[in-house]
Amino acid sequence: MSQFWSPIVHTLTPYVPGEQPKVMNLIKLNTNENPYPPSPKVLEAIRSATNEGLRLYPDPNSDLLKQTIARYHQLDPQQVFVGNGSDEVLAHAFQALLKHQKPLLFPDITYSFYPVYCGLYEIEFEKVPLTDEFQIDVDDYRQPCGGIIFPNPNAPTGCLLGLEAIEKLLKSQPDVVVVVDEAYIDFGGDSAAALINQYPNLLVIQTLSKSRSLAGIRVGFAMGQAHLIEALERVKNSFNSYPLDRLAIPAAAAAFEDEDYFQEARQKIIRTRETLTAAMEDLGFKVLPSAANFIFASHPSIDAEEIAQKLRDEAIIVRFFKQPKIDQFLRITIGTDQENDRLCEVLTQIVNTYSN
Amino acid sequence: MSQFWSPIVHTLTPYVPGEQPKVMNLIKLNTNENPYPPSPKVLEAIRSATNEGLRLYPDPNSDLLKQTIARYHQLDPQQVFVGNGSDEVLAHAFQALLKHQKPLLFPDITYSFYPVYCGLYEIEFEKVPLTDEFQIDVDDYRQPCGGIIFPNPNAPTGCLLGLEAIEKLLKSQPDVVVVVDEAYIDFGGDSAAALINQYPNLLVIQTLSKSRSLAGIRVGFAMGQAHLIEALERVKNSFNSYPLDRLAIPAAAAAFEDEDYFQEARQKIIRTRETLTAAMEDLGFKVLPSAANFIFASHPSIDAEEIAQKLRDEAIIVRFFKQPKIDQFLRITIGTDQENDRLCEVLTQIVNTYSN
Repeated sequence: MSQFWSPIVHTLTPYVPGEQPKVMNLIKLNTNENPYPPSPKVLEAIRSATNEGLRLYPDPNSDLLKQTIARYHQLDPQQVFVGNGSDEVLAHAFQALLKHQKPLLFPDITYSFYPVYCGLYEIEFEKVPLTDEFQIDVDDYRQPCGGIIFPNPNAPTGCLLGLEAIEKLLKSQPDVVVVVDEAYIDFGGDSAAALINQYPNLLVIQTLSKSRSLAGIRVGFAMGQAHLIEALERVKNSFNSYPLDRLAIPAAAAAFEDEDYFQEARQKIIRTRETLTAAMEDLGFKVLPSAANFIFASHPSIDAEEIAQKLRDEAIIVRFFKQPKIDQFLRITIGTDQENDRLCEVLTQIVNTYSN
Repeated sequence: MSQFWSPIVHTLTPYVPGEQPKVMNLIKLNTNENPYPPSPKVLEAIRSATNEGLRLYPDPNSDLLKQTIARYHQLDPQQVFVGNGSDEVLAHAFQALLKHQKPLLFPDITYSFYPVYCGLYEIEFEKVPLTDEFQIDVDDYRQPCGGIIFPNPNAPTGCLLGLEAIEKLLKSQPDVVVVVDEAYIDFGGDSAAALINQYPNLLVIQTLSKSRSLAGIRVGFAMGQAHLIEALERVKNSFNSYPLDRLAIPAAAAAFEDEDYFQEARQKIIRTRETLTAAMEDLGFKVLPSAANFIFASHPSIDAEEIAQKLRDEAIIVRFFKQPKIDQFLRITIGTDQENDRLCEVLTQIVNTYSN
């Protein structure tokens, strides 16, 4: 606390990201990173850009990347906005499109950064409970509001909402922006990007941190009709002219150019997810149906926080949320097959200890 | 305009950065980039980090870089904040420390992003006129206010305010934050960083874009007592957990490790600035005393916009501000000696054309 702080600062409860431990030899299944490295073409693009040109500012509009993403998703470059990770893109979306007289709606169990953005921009919000099966029911969002946002698949549940349900929602709330935060969509769902030309109120946000193995580079993007993108550009250009640097722009573009690599990595993760889900169900866990690169699971008789601690004792880190309704669940990122084997081995030991 | 925009978006007038032309073979003297490449050690640090590790998130706190900067400026790491370019650091400072009941003060001729931030965060401000000689007089800032910010050296004038005057200001306004934006300090002034432990109301902001030749990498930082840094961290952690990526952090740290390279490049620029100033004075220009990597100059009889256009016809781009009081000035970045020779040659031709 300090007299020098702007009044808003006293009220903030900042987001706490999953731990980034500085020790080695951990099996790190706590922040939904991709267990496979980025495409070699991405590393090559970075190497090519590592030169004297770094003395110059980057393209403030990141045109190369916008064009690449537009081509990939069959959109116009005017329908694409890019930022320094999807967290920055989300922040701009909250400020530019989701601050209205009526409250913003999002699920009661969801990405915990959403209420933090609301705090920063003084946006009123209401949490809409998930169903008993941890699903989003779009009928619950038929109420007066200033906007709607949810991840799809949802986090930390991993549960997917189908495009038909999303269309129903877009039609039932034509006067407010519906943001579909697709950080994990490539691991099992269809992107709502295909609906953009039909719905002027749809904004889709994606990231290269998960399915493109580029959490270390910080690139996210939004897709929507040009009038929505313009609002984001106006805020971005009132905040920071050059959010993406001269290495991130070509790196991100290269990631979209290597489709084979992308497909192979995501298929491997999907297969490992299915293996893990079956193994954990055999151990008695309840595993929510996941379309993401993580699973959300709870054991009927062993405390989740205890399991997390025992995994940590064996150098495996998973994420545990001390939060009503989900404090008996663990969120476990899908690792390599080798990491997965070790995880299953340790989980089996833990469950056996308790059943003896 | 769109019904979907948050109301604030309709009111924004975004910042327009200097042009980043995509054609080659221009002498680009319009955005104050360094004409010399980054240190080879910086490029080496980027190459070392271009590996599989990019699949993982960066350190959200950028501890390595904070420690390096703290050591360089003889501060504690708790006294350092880092961001995605000094524009992002400035944005957070406006939101975290400069939004109060009373208006923020800054010079009438200064970095044109300041009023843009005020628009974004709804901060009231008052412009304080420079003296007739384009200098900041700290006595003009003895008035009720919510904060003070100015670049030192000022932009686009290049004029320096000495540390004694800054101390006088800090003492006369002990209850508000004074932000000294030192983007250009390495080209001719002493940093106010040396005053941080004495003044709880001082925040100093620097960038690696100019004197460290890293405009393409986007790293800026703030220095101040821990209570000021904490406000910035709270806002940053409510906005984007990971503003600096896995390449920018080691690149920026390496820049501070190569002191010889840094000293040599900045001395070359200072010498070229002196050569250019003398040459332009010989041509009849009025050149303001510059402590920056640019000069601000006007000709008594030739229109500034016309000179800018004629330079452009010869593939030399400089910056011209269509703004009261300075619309007869050009801001010219200091280039290499070769670029400077060509600039002087073309300026001589232009002046000769008009005097015939």
